[in-house]
Amino acid sequence: MTAPRRPVLLVACEGVDTEAWLQALRAAAPEVELRLWPDGGDPAEIDFGLAWGNPPGFWRAFPSLRAIFSLGAGVDGLLADASLPDVPIVRMADPSLTGAMVEFVVMRTLHHHRLIHLYEQQQAAAVWRPARPPLARDRRVGVMGLGALGGACARSLASFGFQVRGWSRGPREIAGVETFHGLAALADFAAGCEILVCLLPLTAETHDVLDARLFAALAPQACLIQVGRGAQLVEADLLAALESGQIAAATLDVFRSEPLPGDHPFWAHPRVRVIPHAAAFTYPETAAPVLAANLRRLLTGAPAEDVVDPGAGY
Amino acid sequence: MTAPRRPVLLVACEGVDTEAWLQALRAAAPEVELRLWPDGGDPAEIDFGLAWGNPPGFWRAFPSLRAIFSLGAGVDGLLADASLPDVPIVRMADPSLTGAMVEFVVMRTLHHHRLIHLYEQQQAAAVWRPARPPLARDRRVGVMGLGALGGACARSLASFGFQVRGWSRGPREIAGVETFHGLAALADFAAGCEILVCLLPLTAETHDVLDARLFAALAPQACLIQVGRGAQLVEADLLAALESGQIAAATLDVFRSEPLPGDHPFWAHPRVRVIPHAAAFTYPETAAPVLAANLRRLLTGAPAEDVVDPGAGY
Repeated sequence: MTAPRRPVLLVACEGVDTEAWLQALRAAAPEVELRLWPDGGDPAEIDFGLAWGNPPGFWRAFPSLRAIFSLGAGVDGLLADASLPDVPIVRMADPSLTGAMVEFVVMRTLHHHRLIHLYEQQQAAAVWRPARPPLARDRRVGVMGLGALGGACARSLASFGFQVRGWSRGPREIAGVETFHGLAALADFAAGCEILVCLLPLTAETHDVLDARLFAALAPQACLIQVGRGAQLVEADLLAALESGQIAAATLDVFRSEPLPGDHPFWAHPRVRVIPHAAAFTYPETAAPVLAANLRRLLTGAPAEDVVDPGAGY
Repeated sequence: MTAPRRPVLLVACEGVDTEAWLQALRAAAPEVELRLWPDGGDPAEIDFGLAWGNPPGFWRAFPSLRAIFSLGAGVDGLLADASLPDVPIVRMADPSLTGAMVEFVVMRTLHHHRLIHLYEQQQAAAVWRPARPPLARDRRVGVMGLGALGGACARSLASFGFQVRGWSRGPREIAGVETFHGLAALADFAAGCEILVCLLPLTAETHDVLDARLFAALAPQACLIQVGRGAQLVEADLLAALESGQIAAATLDVFRSEPLPGDHPFWAHPRVRVIPHAAAFTYPETAAPVLAANLRRLLTGAPAEDVVDPGAGY
């Protein structure tokens, strides 16, 4: 009689601290055998994959694959692989990732609300000119994307007293947040927003969604916080809106090309803050237990949580 | 039979929008007669004063004065007047002022926690280098001053998961915050703090309290957020600590000399953010109802709330 085979998880992630992941996964899922790409052994023995930054076609090499876990919250890179096997794709639902995104969005919303972008420019010229901002209750803040991340951010902003609006593809209800949905309602949602936060997933519908038309619907001198995906922003439209004053300042964490090329005009723009895709990170020590619980659901035949809808693209 | 005389409030405030104050006070206290300095009429008719930026000796000219209300949260300027009449001095307890200070302190704590000061420097050199910060739960944040403002800030920071410590002159208890008190406990309080927030009132004890010795007790590469009073910071010690790296970055809202002189080294320092004393403002529309309620207490013979202790200096 042979012992039942242990399930095998292949860790195949580019550009992350894989040692920290192996350590956290060993602690969270001791019953699972971990293999680290490229030392994966027999491809037919791989039951699960932890994926990030893999080349197209990578995952089709594993015939026994039962699910792929995405290391990050964005799955557009993974779903862009047309040869992905027909198994559940599970998005990252790390509570620390959500917490980090709430920190970043609250921080930069307060930054723009409190006119710190103005004081940065004044400091460069040694100018002392305090300006009293409106109260948070008199500020309209729009949040695009109301999933796990966007919903948490909208709730936290509402707790600071802002007038928070939310926009999403399908209908959503969040206490204290006025919600809109669908492209037909986008202009109504954006009307008069003084701070706009984008947390949308990248799909065909959200490609280029941050454009001149949307900017024109916002309040004059609005601020943009882009923490979605680079391809959602029409960069030339943002530069023009900054030039005209329709957009007063922008915080950008994601770009069409990353790393942002050294000669890109955003680097030197006095009213653009460039963040090197660092608004939120996955933390192995808090993410591994969530992943392990989901993996156990699959092992017992239960459906996984946080499964991506490939049709919707997120 | 003559109607009883209406109580008279003299508004004598420098550098503020007095028209907004008169409007808010008219709405909040219609039973009070408002006079605007210098059109105060007979000094003997003045019952109450709303004070800000008055020269020494100003308030002793009003023999019937029953209380002085401070327009701002800091009363050090008012108390520096040795000839102040012996009447209750009431500090500003505007809920919007407290809310604005919480916004500012949370924003700048998150700013330093999330290493945005580092990205600002990297952007100046067009360098793309993301860095994953520790989780908030692994960050020790110290708050000096636990009154209305400091207490509210400490509670809000704790809600973000930070390890929050508080220090005050006398003992205070705040749920979720480890508290210390007295100068003898200052080094223990500061030990290992990665972000230090100063919200202390200016007194003889807190003069020069932010010095090399305190900075040395903090964690290496700590960040300072100074929203107390300018004379609490030994500026040369901060510049030296920035130079040595003991302090990584600082957010300064108050200065020994305001406006900050144009040739001051803080203006051009790449790791100092100069804010022109704009961390929090009093909002007439929310402050006037609080003032009116306090004034009515005094008119009915009840003690006012938020009365300053001139001996303690705050």
